[in-house]
Amino acid sequence: MRKIVIGLSGGMDSTTLLGYLFNQGYEVHCCYFFYGSKHNSYERAAVLSIIDYYKGKELPVSLYTFDIEEIFKRSVSNLLKSGGDIPEGHYNDENMKLTVVPGRNMIFTAIMAGLAESIGAEAVGLGIHSGDHHIYPDCRPEFIKALDCAIYLSSDHKVQVIAPFARHNKTSILEQGYELSPPVPYELTRTCYKDQPLACGRCGSCRERIEAFRNVKALDPVKYERERDEEEDILY
Amino acid sequence: MRKIVIGLSGGMDSTTLLGYLFNQGYEVHCCYFFYGSKHNSYERAAVLSIIDYYKGKELPVSLYTFDIEEIFKRSVSNLLKSGGDIPEGHYNDENMKLTVVPGRNMIFTAIMAGLAESIGAEAVGLGIHSGDHHIYPDCRPEFIKALDCAIYLSSDHKVQVIAPFARHNKTSILEQGYELSPPVPYELTRTCYKDQPLACGRCGSCRERIEAFRNVKALDPVKYERERDEEEDILY
Repeated sequence: MRKIVIGLSGGMDSTTLLGYLFNQGYEVHCCYFFYGSKHNSYERAAVLSIIDYYKGKELPVSLYTFDIEEIFKRSVSNLLKSGGDIPEGHYNDENMKLTVVPGRNMIFTAIMAGLAESIGAEAVGLGIHSGDHHIYPDCRPEFIKALDCAIYLSSDHKVQVIAPFARHNKTSILEQGYELSPPVPYELTRTCYKDQPLACGRCGSCRERIEAFRNVKALDPVKYERERDEEEDILY
Repeated sequence: MRKIVIGLSGGMDSTTLLGYLFNQGYEVHCCYFFYGSKHNSYERAAVLSIIDYYKGKELPVSLYTFDIEEIFKRSVSNLLKSGGDIPEGHYNDENMKLTVVPGRNMIFTAIMAGLAESIGAEAVGLGIHSGDHHIYPDCRPEFIKALDCAIYLSSDHKVQVIAPFARHNKTSILEQGYELSPPVPYELTRTCYKDQPLACGRCGSCRERIEAFRNVKALDPVKYERERDEEEDILY
């Protein structure tokens, strides 16, 4: 069976990617990273329940957890426990740039490529999407292409990088996700950036997700702290 | 003052790079990685004494140590504590391929690029040289070029990768090193791959070093377990 390594953050994009790759016939080796983000423990709980869900469906999936807070202890980002508050507002707003973690995707992907080579997987899969491009340089297609080249050469042509949603937005990801069988367990996913059990509904990450569910006319099964009709500017 | 981040392994190549970068006017931020190699503790001792040497010369240098054994716990390589014996023989011999650690340079450089961006350094410097090309795909110029592109894009054009010795062999590195002032402290460097205090003089790494000193007609100040005239096939 063809093997692939992916980063599974517990959010809707990487969870859709996981479901998509089962449909492509892959044995999927998921990696989760503890890197010091505010929402790490909530993400991890989501990841564990998503893995359990697919194992219950007898799909070929495994999980590797990497504890790498050490690497980011000098990094400056509001996404990290060491940084300031998570900004609220739309995902494209300038203040969301405070959530960039320098080099994060490069580091995660390099680690996954090393694992891929060690276990004989042919690729590393990333759930990166076009909504990330504006804010995050390490989510843009030109970066993914350079990364693919670097990893292909580093691994002596054994491992490539794929990012099937790199030119799709979250709405398109949901449209594809709802076509998959077994159903993608969106009720188990965690998108919010904040350090609290209930998703806030206010940060850029929550808002972009809520907007995508509204666009596909589906009910987001996740509960939010903010009431749906609380303010006029809310996106759903 | 211009800042640069480099990987300092305690060997003669990265130590020459350090001296070279001081001469270029850089403030040098050195990174050392504990990644589970057999020779990690001996390398680290060398790194500490090299840093002390340059601090004693009042040069602008600092050290960051990253403990990332976690990342390589599933990696297969004889260079690691978890792997088989370090092969003996010439550096180009096929069995030296057993010492490849999948993705190592990609992971190290990604971590250093994240640090560079966080502290405002303009580049990551690598002591990679042409003697590494045959065995290690992650030391070849085509990989370095792709890595440079990926990191430049990942960092939103803030950080580049330089590897001044990528097309030089160890002999050429020594020739350049002996021109530098203050003198590069080759007596403090550690090149051997083995898990023992005294350099073996038999592994590919030792042999390549010994050959380089012989080529520049200098006495290698490091002591070896193997006597210099012990066998006819010895390289010095």
